[in-house]
Amino acid sequence: MKLSLTPKYSAPSFPVFNVQALMKKIIWVLGILLTFNNAFAQKLERIEPMFWFTGMHNPKLQLLVHGDHIANTTVSLNYQGVKLLKVNKVENPNYLFLDLELSPTVKPGTFPINFSLQGKKILSYAYALKNRDKSTNRIQGVTTKDFIYLLMPDRFANGDKSNDVVKGLAETALNRDSMYYRHGGDIQGVMNHLDYLKDLGITTVWMTPELENDMPQASYHGYAVTDHYKIDPRYGTNELYKKYVETAHAKGMKIIKDIVHNHIGTGHWFYKDLPMKSWLNQWPKYTQTSYRDQTVMDPHASAADRKQMLDGWFVPSMPDLNQTNPYVQNYLTQNHIWWIEYAGIDGLRLDTYPYNDPAYMADWALKLQAEFPRLSVFGETLVSAAANQAFFTGGNTVNRGFDTHLQGITDAVLKDAIYEGLNGKNGWVDGINRLYATLAHDFLYKNPNANCIFLDNHDMSRFYSVVNEDFDKYKMGMAILLTMRGIPQMYYGTEILMKNFSNPDGLVRADFSGGWEGDKKDKFSANGRTEKENEAYNFVKTLANFRQTNAALQTGKLMQFVPQDDIYVYFRYNNSAKGSVMVVVNNTDKEKNLSTERFAERTSGITTAREVITGKTMPFKEIKVPAKTTWVLELN
Amino acid sequence: MKLSLTPKYSAPSFPVFNVQALMKKIIWVLGILLTFNNAFAQKLERIEPMFWFTGMHNPKLQLLVHGDHIANTTVSLNYQGVKLLKVNKVENPNYLFLDLELSPTVKPGTFPINFSLQGKKILSYAYALKNRDKSTNRIQGVTTKDFIYLLMPDRFANGDKSNDVVKGLAETALNRDSMYYRHGGDIQGVMNHLDYLKDLGITTVWMTPELENDMPQASYHGYAVTDHYKIDPRYGTNELYKKYVETAHAKGMKIIKDIVHNHIGTGHWFYKDLPMKSWLNQWPKYTQTSYRDQTVMDPHASAADRKQMLDGWFVPSMPDLNQTNPYVQNYLTQNHIWWIEYAGIDGLRLDTYPYNDPAYMADWALKLQAEFPRLSVFGETLVSAAANQAFFTGGNTVNRGFDTHLQGITDAVLKDAIYEGLNGKNGWVDGINRLYATLAHDFLYKNPNANCIFLDNHDMSRFYSVVNEDFDKYKMGMAILLTMRGIPQMYYGTEILMKNFSNPDGLVRADFSGGWEGDKKDKFSANGRTEKENEAYNFVKTLANFRQTNAALQTGKLMQFVPQDDIYVYFRYNNSAKGSVMVVVNNTDKEKNLSTERFAERTSGITTAREVITGKTMPFKEIKVPAKTTWVLELN
Repeated sequence: MKLSLTPKYSAPSFPVFNVQALMKKIIWVLGILLTFNNAFAQKLERIEPMFWFTGMHNPKLQLLVHGDHIANTTVSLNYQGVKLLKVNKVENPNYLFLDLELSPTVKPGTFPINFSLQGKKILSYAYALKNRDKSTNRIQGVTTKDFIYLLMPDRFANGDKSNDVVKGLAETALNRDSMYYRHGGDIQGVMNHLDYLKDLGITTVWMTPELENDMPQASYHGYAVTDHYKIDPRYGTNELYKKYVETAHAKGMKIIKDIVHNHIGTGHWFYKDLPMKSWLNQWPKYTQTSYRDQTVMDPHASAADRKQMLDGWFVPSMPDLNQTNPYVQNYLTQNHIWWIEYAGIDGLRLDTYPYNDPAYMADWALKLQAEFPRLSVFGETLVSAAANQAFFTGGNTVNRGFDTHLQGITDAVLKDAIYEGLNGKNGWVDGINRLYATLAHDFLYKNPNANCIFLDNHDMSRFYSVVNEDFDKYKMGMAILLTMRGIPQMYYGTEILMKNFSNPDGLVRADFSGGWEGDKKDKFSANGRTEKENEAYNFVKTLANFRQTNAALQTGKLMQFVPQDDIYVYFRYNNSAKGSVMVVVNNTDKEKNLSTERFAERTSGITTAREVITGKTMPFKEIKVPAKTTWVLELN
Repeated sequence: MKLSLTPKYSAPSFPVFNVQALMKKIIWVLGILLTFNNAFAQKLERIEPMFWFTGMHNPKLQLLVHGDHIANTTVSLNYQGVKLLKVNKVENPNYLFLDLELSPTVKPGTFPINFSLQGKKILSYAYALKNRDKSTNRIQGVTTKDFIYLLMPDRFANGDKSNDVVKGLAETALNRDSMYYRHGGDIQGVMNHLDYLKDLGITTVWMTPELENDMPQASYHGYAVTDHYKIDPRYGTNELYKKYVETAHAKGMKIIKDIVHNHIGTGHWFYKDLPMKSWLNQWPKYTQTSYRDQTVMDPHASAADRKQMLDGWFVPSMPDLNQTNPYVQNYLTQNHIWWIEYAGIDGLRLDTYPYNDPAYMADWALKLQAEFPRLSVFGETLVSAAANQAFFTGGNTVNRGFDTHLQGITDAVLKDAIYEGLNGKNGWVDGINRLYATLAHDFLYKNPNANCIFLDNHDMSRFYSVVNEDFDKYKMGMAILLTMRGIPQMYYGTEILMKNFSNPDGLVRADFSGGWEGDKKDKFSANGRTEKENEAYNFVKTLANFRQTNAALQTGKLMQFVPQDDIYVYFRYNNSAKGSVMVVVNNTDKEKNLSTERFAERTSGITTAREVITGKTMPFKEIKVPAKTTWVLELN
């Protein structure tokens, strides 16, 4: 833990070439002599947010000012529609927090924020207010109509070799042979392959965090942010990120940003010079979180356990932000708003949601909703039961009157249930019945459709490995993913059967072959893929594209039937039975005869069913369902 | 399915000894000839409830009248404060349903209800209104202060050999060698052993249903009721049942009645002559329930699946009552109110709760609560997750605005978690962590303390067998049962280590040795028990009696700590740390050192701990917890 609260001497930055200046310097030196503490800023390290926007819902803006002994200065500004309400000094004199109020009618423009010492302006910052961009194809929200592709930018494609190693950053080695070093992938690489993704039927890209992670080791993963306002230079620039979002939008695609409220990296600039001790959750000795989400919801939890869960550090290299500190709250909330407005982001994925301060997160959600009514948000909740997931979702009925206002979660419990349905032995609560029972728990959510559903991600073993590289199971799982309620998410490379287990070697974060110049195989093109990989690719592509044309899958309800004879059947439907989708899961080794009578509620007037993968049409009556198959049938 | 709707000829029951009567008979015969349908009641088979009470909260009373062609008669009554609002005729002319309204000031007394044909009274029933018994030691409710003993009256003790076989009933054989025949146990047998139970620390007796089950096979289990107003004569009489309750009350004990809303036995008198087709849930061909509670809560459930769950029959021998039929609703609700008021019952256990019509059950609960504010009610919910259990509990937050008004449930999920804690291998969500995580789900309930908690019952393998007759585990489980939140229930014989598995032989319903004259061993006395059985008995007795004196266990809150180092610790406490109970579960094979610092929230000022079983007192600091032990420590 490093905390600099003792004043430091620093030479002033203004020129000393004339008598006046010399006199000032003498006065200044006298000042130092008289009051050693009365040092002041050599330069402005930063003001954050570095610019802001007009027309925001919230008229308040709190600027963090960082500069050597900046607290010794007097701050002033003069711009119509901008009031400097308060200048907050904190423990560390290298910080000021300026409370501004912006009038609803304030005009875009730039104005100086002046910092004076003993009546003399010594520093100035040209603060810009930019016009909000109200274009309709940005900040669109991510819905059940979408199909999310999750990738790690370091591992997907290297579009710009010039940024592979950036001088001055703590980690300099590039080593594609190790899973823990940088591999050189970047935002340009993703941009270069947006057409590939669009062809596959992807509508939305979610990158793991692309903010600066100036960490000495394993900086590629992105969750140890060291600068909240800067894209990691190994991925690109802020401008490139904005262009990436705009390029996606121009292609009719959407972008999710992965953000981290809970912690930072030890390389963070403000970790090296904390504004105040309470900026972080401090402990007498290093204390790790218990990772026990139960402590947050359990009515029998001890305060000590709850504190350890919420305030304990995730890992030693990731200091835990104190989200009950109003300065931290403002800093984070404004940062997220800034990025969304700046780049036009469509949705957010919130890292380690249960570890955050619940009251702050609810306030955060309301503030973001007020600024961006269409923005989608889902929180990562790697917990063990639907009730635990539901506890964290907004407007739900289980959280004892406390509303998190969180729209959705990452539905890990559904993932487990799909695995059980594919790998388990059918029994009263096992095998396919687990999947059925898990979906029945949707009564716990206000809106299960806001849940991000998935088969794997960067923190877990890859789907194809979990089903033991059984291609039938692979297809069964993908068909469920692409027809189930919620917003489906696929992890990069699943479409080309990338595999491996999360422990112990991190190979689940392997490079997408073809993303690097000189890669032996280019899996981005059909020629570079094996026959089986193409079959997988085409399976996903067929379903994903069908999904985009079928209203029942896009916006329809779910109806599921109690599994019988080891066959699990569900429907996606709107008002009319025609066009609805019937999904039949046969996880046994036997072909099964399925009488359709039982489903009359959803099949009135239906005479034919089209099996979406093969395109084969069959009369809708008694159906022979092949072994180990998830059949997706379009009814007509 | 038997339904008698065709009119039947029956001779009248009045005397024919004089001319007037003879003329009447002639007129009557003419009547028959003129309108064949115009038959009338030979006799009144029954009126139910057979009597009622003054001073009830609900002024309405609906009498079921059963008699041959009773619908042909005209009904009248004349008693101050009693209005005959309506006489309802239904499909079967052998029934009338009389809607009465009782004034709040109606006096106890008896009045005739007259049935007339063509202006002449042909039948009369002396209807009694009895004074409500407002004694404070009846209808007391069963709370966390109690310890419930669940027994099957046929299998506990035979107190009256004269009723072992009762002529006229369908099952006549008594065969103690078979688990599926009658064994001869009865209410007198239970009464004879109330002192045994009281000595053990039991406060409350729950017998499986003791109403008449006039069924040809396996009638002993009691859930196939054939007369709602009659104690099975093999168990005793209504009067004896009332005496049983009063005897228990006199000893400071309480009584739970086990009632069945969902179904009856095919031997039920009204099944043989149904009031109307819709009295039951009828199906074109026999349709069994799916036993899938999910269909009731799943927002994605099909109407067909929900109907099969709720309206399908439990088994072929148990017709499913149609609880959406208002006559059925009144019949059941009044029957339960009648028994409670008649006998002074303290609590109800509701069989197969999820299979009942939800709207009716909510209305039922409110009606019972209005009559008996102190009455305790818990529903049997053998479901697979806490959320499913919670869905059925009243005032909870998960049921999408629908309030079941059910106070508590049988907490099978906690039972499973205790087993996992005893038998499982500790892991993130396994072993003792499962128990911790399950209790954290208490946020789903309005009041988890109203849950009946247990280790086994008549429908499952016995606890001692499930822990593989491991006596350490037995003690660990019993200690958890008797110190955990909720209302503990023990299955008869667990205190003497009775064992066996539920499948396939029913031996979990074996006789309590010593309950029958001539039994080789009398386990009711210490001399008849083995050393180990006495150790078990004394273990239960010690804890159960401690429980009665310790306010924290009686009414205290629960606080649990995240398991660490395989040790799970929870506290029961009131305001002061002194007198609170610390429970330490060490399910490993190793003695463990436990530092008490972490529990400071609950142990401020505590200097000593008394281990309740041995009575040994130790300083409260670093504690050595023996292997495979649930330690119950009283703090001071």
